[in-house]
Amino acid sequence: MDFLEQIRAVVGDGGLITGEDVAARPADWLGRSCVEAKAIVRPRSTQEVSEVMKLCYAAKQTIVPAGGLTGLVHGQLSRPEDIQVSFERMRAIESIDPVGRTITVQSGVPLQAVHEAVAEHGLIYGVDLGARGSCTIGGNISTNAGGNSVLRYGMTRDNVLGLEAVLADGTIISSMNTLLKNNTAYDLKQLFIGSEGTLGLVTRAVLRLHPAPASEATAIVALDSFEQLKNFFALAGARLGSLLRSFEAMWDSYYNLIGIQSGRHQPPLPTGHAMYVVIEIAGTDPQRDDALFTEMLGDALKQGILADAVIALSKAQRDAIWAIREDVEGQIHMMTPGVTFDVSLPIKKMQDYIDGLKATLRETCGKEALMVVFGHIGDNNLHINVSPRPWNEHAKHAAEAMVYRPLAAFGGSISAEHGIGIDKREWLPLSRNPAELTMMRQIKATLDPLNLINPGKVLG
Amino acid sequence: MDFLEQIRAVVGDGGLITGEDVAARPADWLGRSCVEAKAIVRPRSTQEVSEVMKLCYAAKQTIVPAGGLTGLVHGQLSRPEDIQVSFERMRAIESIDPVGRTITVQSGVPLQAVHEAVAEHGLIYGVDLGARGSCTIGGNISTNAGGNSVLRYGMTRDNVLGLEAVLADGTIISSMNTLLKNNTAYDLKQLFIGSEGTLGLVTRAVLRLHPAPASEATAIVALDSFEQLKNFFALAGARLGSLLRSFEAMWDSYYNLIGIQSGRHQPPLPTGHAMYVVIEIAGTDPQRDDALFTEMLGDALKQGILADAVIALSKAQRDAIWAIREDVEGQIHMMTPGVTFDVSLPIKKMQDYIDGLKATLRETCGKEALMVVFGHIGDNNLHINVSPRPWNEHAKHAAEAMVYRPLAAFGGSISAEHGIGIDKREWLPLSRNPAELTMMRQIKATLDPLNLINPGKVLG
Repeated sequence: MDFLEQIRAVVGDGGLITGEDVAARPADWLGRSCVEAKAIVRPRSTQEVSEVMKLCYAAKQTIVPAGGLTGLVHGQLSRPEDIQVSFERMRAIESIDPVGRTITVQSGVPLQAVHEAVAEHGLIYGVDLGARGSCTIGGNISTNAGGNSVLRYGMTRDNVLGLEAVLADGTIISSMNTLLKNNTAYDLKQLFIGSEGTLGLVTRAVLRLHPAPASEATAIVALDSFEQLKNFFALAGARLGSLLRSFEAMWDSYYNLIGIQSGRHQPPLPTGHAMYVVIEIAGTDPQRDDALFTEMLGDALKQGILADAVIALSKAQRDAIWAIREDVEGQIHMMTPGVTFDVSLPIKKMQDYIDGLKATLRETCGKEALMVVFGHIGDNNLHINVSPRPWNEHAKHAAEAMVYRPLAAFGGSISAEHGIGIDKREWLPLSRNPAELTMMRQIKATLDPLNLINPGKVLG
Repeated sequence: MDFLEQIRAVVGDGGLITGEDVAARPADWLGRSCVEAKAIVRPRSTQEVSEVMKLCYAAKQTIVPAGGLTGLVHGQLSRPEDIQVSFERMRAIESIDPVGRTITVQSGVPLQAVHEAVAEHGLIYGVDLGARGSCTIGGNISTNAGGNSVLRYGMTRDNVLGLEAVLADGTIISSMNTLLKNNTAYDLKQLFIGSEGTLGLVTRAVLRLHPAPASEATAIVALDSFEQLKNFFALAGARLGSLLRSFEAMWDSYYNLIGIQSGRHQPPLPTGHAMYVVIEIAGTDPQRDDALFTEMLGDALKQGILADAVIALSKAQRDAIWAIREDVEGQIHMMTPGVTFDVSLPIKKMQDYIDGLKATLRETCGKEALMVVFGHIGDNNLHINVSPRPWNEHAKHAAEAMVYRPLAAFGGSISAEHGIGIDKREWLPLSRNPAELTMMRQIKATLDPLNLINPGKVLG
């Protein structure tokens, strides 16, 4: 029997897409490109994924796993000779344990579906990000997704209790732990989290849940220096403790271009300050938490740490504040063509690093170049958008070199939350040393000796 | 040059202990046994550890790493043919970053020294356990230590940002990340956390810190059924959110034997209830937090969830409450000889599991057998002490079988926080399936092909 017919026998007619139907499907969330692949396979269960992988292993067929295709480093990109394994028919929410605070799902479940399923139990899942409607739990796990609540709930890694994965040869590794504490030998699931689908295909997962907050409060504040931002972060930490959920900074470059010049927002604070911060708490007692939040902000104003502050008094005001920080469309509108960066570095080094970029921007990227800086400061995470002018592949590469090269000296990393995929492979040695890279290759060769799973990604 | 002389050349005279001096040193924290080993080597730096390991690799010499020797499963036990590598001369606290909230240490630093070093910066390290004065950061990392604050701050794994380890062949894997977000390819440090020194020797680490709480409140409560305990845990979670730091349960068996009959305590609550819980919060605002805590307890009493409750009004009262829960000496006094267990299972299954043990205790362990149950309920973690009567090796094994065998059916695990070491090797297949064990052996063989590092531990 023909190879693809063998696969069809496993996944059924509805599980196999071939020929022109492959190219009819988008390869990324913006719909800018089409899937290139020998076929798209859509298994319905771990067992089917395992059988598909056994066939691929025997045939030395390379495969690329596909979740919601919202990754930003082309980790999900397949080539004409690959088979794409899509998890879109593995969307079962298998169970919720409200006492143990866990949910068990198949990996194709969209992030937002998890949020909705647990809400009726008075629980939340701690990972949240802009792509929530499209991205899948399997993709979140494979990329160790971060987002806007890392400060409080951690990365995806911190919220996965157990998982099931299929290795290159079809072996099913089922580690569906539901327990907060389980020190029984090696914690194998860690190998599949954040390895971008290169060590195994995640098929199911047990996620940790938290009690839903009963109170939320949001403010946007203005500061006149990065020194004051550090003071504000320390004050907020000491006074709000674990109530603090988000601490999102926008440098003036970002606030002025996206918040004001774009004309897309009603800016709650005027231009003219060095920095703006969206700060948000989530707690259990609306009255007490609000009072604590207001008091802390008042003290920060009194002490001269803050230059200005606005507390959101309605959901509409809260949404308007977040809309500036999360305005991806605005960034695309104002800065295309350009490159978006996702780096991390110690808070105390951030301003020196940014000053260095500012000093070289025009020389490196042209006199008309644009650059904006924002990010999840509390998590060490900066997002930087650079638009070299004129734009071309050479200019793009020069911008990458400008952003990535200085990071090591500051103790920084070339990827905070987006991962490596294809786009950052070239720069990976800036963040990981030769011994680390050798050990990674050993692990990859042990688990995927024929280099069949997401080949060419991460380690190249 | 003789092999040990080559080692002496690396670590210096003070770094090598041989002959009778080896047996003069205790092999465990109770001082019940003496070290058996060819030699004890005490390197001063990662570089020295690496050079020692290169010599051992060339000579096919097995080694056993030693931290504070407080492990409870004999993971630190060496044999006459092994070399013990002790980290007692690697106790440097290298740096503290109060803004980024990190501390960088050598792995021989005792846990308590970390607590003391960060306190002056208004920070805390989230891992705390009874053995704090002796246990080391390297040992904590190797065993993924838990403790009394896991509910709030997680296990050791959740508090390690970066580490450095030496592989069997002397390769130094330096992953001294200081960043909360760093998605640059595989997260290698995860392999060394919780693998009990079988994959590499941890030599340095970067730990995550948190703002020190400004408020603390402690209570002990009595409940008349496990059903009510589940209700109380849900209520406490919803009302206290992330203020909740500890939720420690004692079944009547434990409270009556250790708290009352031992005569070692002034019991704050009378006997006669099904369960007792020590509940503790840590927050940022003493007045508000105290009010919230008192209000929640009052409501739980009013709703009939609690049968009784006492809030600690002084540090002495708080210490007296914790003294009952943490009375290891009392347990030894009342229950020796006996076996201590550390298992985990879903909260909703706990009472059925314990009822099953009670039903078989006398038949399995003798009519005079003792059993007490307590643990970190919020973390799924039960500690169970069993004293079979009469005591002998056969009775001990029967008690192990009684405790471990039913766990799998309840979705439980044979080790919550103590690890596998030697003591639980036999039972590991009850908690991990054949495919998992095979994958673990592949990882071990890849990183330690000659089986030189802590041989015979964990996987056997």
